[in-house]
Amino acid sequence: MVITNGIAPISAPSPIGTTTISPQSPIVDPLPYVSLKTGLCYDVRMRYHAKIVTNAYDYTDPHPEDPRRVYRIYKALAEAGLVDMKGASGAEHIGGKLMQHIPAREATKEEVTLVHEIKHWDFIERTASMTQDELVEETDNGDSVYFNNESWFCAKLSCGGVIDTCKAVVNGDVKNAIAVVRPPGHHAEPYKPAGFCMFNNVAVASRVILKEFPEQVKKILILDWDIHHGNGTQRAFYNDPNVLYISLHRYDNGKFYPGGTFGNYDKVGEGPGEGRNVNIPWPCGGMGDGDYIYAFQKTVMPIAEEFGPDLVILSSGFDAAPGDELGECFVSPAAYGHMTHMLKSLAHGKLAVVLEGGYNLDSIATSALGVTKVLIGDAPIPLTNVYARPEAVQTVDKVSRTQARFWKCMKIGHMIHDLPEAPAVERLQDIIRRYQASQLFAHFSMTKLPIFRDRISRSFEDQVLCTPGFQSAKTVVVIVHDPPDVWTEPDPVTGQISLHETFVMDAEIKYIQWAHQKGYGVVDINAPAVFTDQEDEGYNVQAALQDLCLYVWDNYLDLSDARNFVFVGVGEACGGHVYLLGHREVRERVRAAIAFAGSKTVFPIVPIMDEFITDWYYKNSLVLTSSNHPMWEQSNGGKNPRKKYGNVQKTEYETMNELLIGKYTDVIAFAEEDIEESSSEEEEAGPDRKRLKNEGSSDEGWVDGVIPTSAAIM
Amino acid sequence: MVITNGIAPISAPSPIGTTTISPQSPIVDPLPYVSLKTGLCYDVRMRYHAKIVTNAYDYTDPHPEDPRRVYRIYKALAEAGLVDMKGASGAEHIGGKLMQHIPAREATKEEVTLVHEIKHWDFIERTASMTQDELVEETDNGDSVYFNNESWFCAKLSCGGVIDTCKAVVNGDVKNAIAVVRPPGHHAEPYKPAGFCMFNNVAVASRVILKEFPEQVKKILILDWDIHHGNGTQRAFYNDPNVLYISLHRYDNGKFYPGGTFGNYDKVGEGPGEGRNVNIPWPCGGMGDGDYIYAFQKTVMPIAEEFGPDLVILSSGFDAAPGDELGECFVSPAAYGHMTHMLKSLAHGKLAVVLEGGYNLDSIATSALGVTKVLIGDAPIPLTNVYARPEAVQTVDKVSRTQARFWKCMKIGHMIHDLPEAPAVERLQDIIRRYQASQLFAHFSMTKLPIFRDRISRSFEDQVLCTPGFQSAKTVVVIVHDPPDVWTEPDPVTGQISLHETFVMDAEIKYIQWAHQKGYGVVDINAPAVFTDQEDEGYNVQAALQDLCLYVWDNYLDLSDARNFVFVGVGEACGGHVYLLGHREVRERVRAAIAFAGSKTVFPIVPIMDEFITDWYYKNSLVLTSSNHPMWEQSNGGKNPRKKYGNVQKTEYETMNELLIGKYTDVIAFAEEDIEESSSEEEEAGPDRKRLKNEGSSDEGWVDGVIPTSAAIM
Repeated sequence: MVITNGIAPISAPSPIGTTTISPQSPIVDPLPYVSLKTGLCYDVRMRYHAKIVTNAYDYTDPHPEDPRRVYRIYKALAEAGLVDMKGASGAEHIGGKLMQHIPAREATKEEVTLVHEIKHWDFIERTASMTQDELVEETDNGDSVYFNNESWFCAKLSCGGVIDTCKAVVNGDVKNAIAVVRPPGHHAEPYKPAGFCMFNNVAVASRVILKEFPEQVKKILILDWDIHHGNGTQRAFYNDPNVLYISLHRYDNGKFYPGGTFGNYDKVGEGPGEGRNVNIPWPCGGMGDGDYIYAFQKTVMPIAEEFGPDLVILSSGFDAAPGDELGECFVSPAAYGHMTHMLKSLAHGKLAVVLEGGYNLDSIATSALGVTKVLIGDAPIPLTNVYARPEAVQTVDKVSRTQARFWKCMKIGHMIHDLPEAPAVERLQDIIRRYQASQLFAHFSMTKLPIFRDRISRSFEDQVLCTPGFQSAKTVVVIVHDPPDVWTEPDPVTGQISLHETFVMDAEIKYIQWAHQKGYGVVDINAPAVFTDQEDEGYNVQAALQDLCLYVWDNYLDLSDARNFVFVGVGEACGGHVYLLGHREVRERVRAAIAFAGSKTVFPIVPIMDEFITDWYYKNSLVLTSSNHPMWEQSNGGKNPRKKYGNVQKTEYETMNELLIGKYTDVIAFAEEDIEESSSEEEEAGPDRKRLKNEGSSDEGWVDGVIPTSAAIM
Repeated sequence: MVITNGIAPISAPSPIGTTTISPQSPIVDPLPYVSLKTGLCYDVRMRYHAKIVTNAYDYTDPHPEDPRRVYRIYKALAEAGLVDMKGASGAEHIGGKLMQHIPAREATKEEVTLVHEIKHWDFIERTASMTQDELVEETDNGDSVYFNNESWFCAKLSCGGVIDTCKAVVNGDVKNAIAVVRPPGHHAEPYKPAGFCMFNNVAVASRVILKEFPEQVKKILILDWDIHHGNGTQRAFYNDPNVLYISLHRYDNGKFYPGGTFGNYDKVGEGPGEGRNVNIPWPCGGMGDGDYIYAFQKTVMPIAEEFGPDLVILSSGFDAAPGDELGECFVSPAAYGHMTHMLKSLAHGKLAVVLEGGYNLDSIATSALGVTKVLIGDAPIPLTNVYARPEAVQTVDKVSRTQARFWKCMKIGHMIHDLPEAPAVERLQDIIRRYQASQLFAHFSMTKLPIFRDRISRSFEDQVLCTPGFQSAKTVVVIVHDPPDVWTEPDPVTGQISLHETFVMDAEIKYIQWAHQKGYGVVDINAPAVFTDQEDEGYNVQAALQDLCLYVWDNYLDLSDARNFVFVGVGEACGGHVYLLGHREVRERVRAAIAFAGSKTVFPIVPIMDEFITDWYYKNSLVLTSSNHPMWEQSNGGKNPRKKYGNVQKTEYETMNELLIGKYTDVIAFAEEDIEESSSEEEEAGPDRKRLKNEGSSDEGWVDGVIPTSAAIM
């Protein structure tokens, strides 16, 4: 080809654009996929399957798997103009410019028994000739499934419709398709009907496609977003490496239908099918667009792309839509459209959507319309809520970690190795506490305070430290605190943290240093987040901390010479000193109760010993919360907390360390003011509250021990 | 409506499906978007802008921004049948069933100066009447931009074409569009042309749309996947909150064109535009499909969805495609299609694709075809490589952390608070080493070995520990190790780690315990990953460790009574003892050199003092690597490592702790065998190598101190 840059083209037009392209008259369509219509399988006869009316409630409170379900979806598509409606009762007339009708036909015994046992087929067949009483009895005996004499016919029609829908997609008769069918299928197990389902339509269709199109379709992805786990589908392919089953569903710790643990995230398939089963089990209702889109972007699509399916079948229940009383979730038609759009990017766009559950007739109609518009080629409606809830993030994280064993894309950022067994494994909380103890010993000569009590003694062994001779100090600061914060940035690839890039922030030491400089005694109580000692495992830490605070008060503090106590709580551990203040007579000696609540619980005082303690607490406390504490959210009405929570203040800080450092000056001023006041009162009243002294006798408290330079601590 | 469940419908057909739907005869198309064509802006006159030929090289090595670029793309679309080609030279004939022609017209001064300064417009205007010499001079003076007398016309045509392309999309004349234009625009700054660009087509079009469609378009997303950073576009909207600019580009630490730091991830916009600029700066070439798809799923799409644009403009350079000599990346037409598909889900599908760079004529043609097919409605081609490289994961992680300040979706799993200043912040590596020291003291009475040397003394202060009286032990085990591994699962929502769910794995203690039980002396050298002492910051740790090992040998080990030394290295720290073995005469006393290399560097021995040391090392060493060590990858040819690397073995273990625990029995057997051999030789040779003894004198080594029960250690 002649090089044509330079100025030559202007004076003498180059051959570009006139001779190098041969005249094009494409015989076949250049983009056949675009030119194809979207298939629609719909047959009014599927409404014949219905629950036999046995009492008046059946009229006023119809069964959720209602015959109108398929019709209402069809009606929504027709009213939106997606299908022509010359005579909506007859399947032969539907279709039109945008959609192409796929007739339903009865599935054969040969097809159905690719998934189901023959006795299962035989049983459903028998229902066609049962008496009404027998049908009612079988309905009552079954696992959430009802029968009439038409159930057999409808089940075959539904299943056959799904098979032919998938075939039409694979054959390229349509670009994609939706099968608006009932009864649904995904709960039907190989050996029994269940959950409104008789034959597992999607499972049977998958088996038929794998059998009849061995060259074109080697791998199928079944994506199931029905709010219920598709136990039957999972079972049918649990050991099959060629069918990847991904389900998003409510799990509720095994309490949501179909119940049990088969739908949990750790069920990953078995044998050759190991790693070909992905459950995304929501822990509760209320999941919405942001949660589903997050799961799709983070897990569903990466795994699906790595799998590389030749066909995608969507088990599309619409019971996660708002208004569905069983699902109690909030997935909008826009989100259903976005998820459909994402799935269209797989398998050359070969996507068959199959109706499963969904019981609010309005919701399933608008949801199915959202999906179908995107199938036809419309752009999805923009999402308005794209935030994932913490519950969703946590669930997706568990799924990712679990699936990291099987999918390279899920390994990113996860430490997939199991924690080795002992020897030589220690919890960081224990290491840091022992380190703290050694530091407090080195700088302030602090040592363990003996705790002799059956239950809590071992787990709290290293947790209570005190300055020497605190029993004879005039003022004692009691600090009850959570373990320190750790700041790190894990390696985004491996998820590992580097010791040299991990920082432990222990700003409490500023307060110990303050007390030390003032000559106050210090008792430091660390509240571990969990107990390490196996005997104490499961013992409630907050309850144990409350016991411990009472123990320390009764056995040490109350017996000491101190006239002034300052309580300082940090984090959830504030619950310990607040409990103590309510359960002992402390008003005369405790001068200040400071709670660094941060974003943790703010504990109310419970007046067990002293009816005036609530007023006292409100006047003598400082409860410091972070700017993002839930109590300041508008949904809480913006009201000030009640007096029993103390003098609660909102600060501008977010993290505990910012709070501890930022409020240092205010807090020590608050504490010292009260101490001074009490000292002058004390002088007037005379030293009548002195008690038995321990060996140390100076009212000034101890001054010996290692006096740290500030550089050594800071 | 009559309730129709129960068997009633069969005997008496319900009104469903016949009367409730009113006859539909939609006057307008129900899905106008689907029915619209994709727009194509193309004008052969844009080829008039060309570099003036000044020497012979211009013919054989044409400028990359070649006039044929737009034609080759058009030709590819035509040959694929996407546009009719009645007379490819004339813009008036293009279009057809799938695409609709959008004529290019010259942008006006009023339009262009919405972005560019008037003197910039005036300068480009002047080029139309410059002499050839003047043009060549301006070309030589400019920042990678050339001019001829037609440049002025082509720049206006390119810019006007892009404006009208965006208008056609916003107006709904087309569903989406591609503008195959040149010269490109995204490097053109408001005040100067640069990087083959004269007017910033996309920036000008954005300003025109925001001005002329204030109701329909309030927010625009500009996605720029040209391999170069679009500095001009970023500049134009840097303080504009209504235009979100997201760019994926090679950055190469500021060395890749356009250079400097303006394209780095920390450039997030300013003023009201803060948080409306997202740079994803690749650190190197070689990025491919998996990297781009990962960035899209992880960052681009979540941020774009949260932004919620009314129009998406794609600055579509194709210089990340394979074959582009400037880009050196590997983004396939399939991946371009997938990214286009994802972008189609935004803004009701209103997407305008605008050509920027891309210089391999074949690559840009196939890439643009991949994009255009998806614009028209084809399903993207399945991806074959969906794995993100570590470089991509790290880059996207940095971007996510940075953008977490502005986008709620990016906050997930990131600790966005800055590390507070001291006081009270300690590196975990220091805490754990001090804890280790206290444990080794408690169980084995190990204490610090004094290190008196200017440079390394402070950072290694706590790092070298020894058993009491090791100088008089017959056998001394010298352990040189990395800090222990930490195992944790950060909270997936906040990114925080919990101390009670974080475990420190320190399996080395098994080897100290073994030596202790045998009565051997122990010297334990910890190699921190970085130096904490500020004076030592930046000092190479490996070099310091080598110095330290020589120091410990010269001042302690060589002077000791020991007849047997066993060296045990763990991790990168193996480099210390391997260095020592090559730099001192050690063969007579060192019985075994064990290196737990894991997946870290395997160090070769360098024979400085002893020419036979390589053979000796091969015979007396055991170098244990993990199953996933890079040296065993097939790309390394599968050859066994050379002798200087020692007796290297591949194990079945992956992590260092598995390796330390799993090979324990083998390793101590290997060490003990050599010790015994040497002892019997020793007896024959007589005790002629005894030296000055320290206070301890028992050949058995120390036996006093705390003798741990195994429970206390394990």
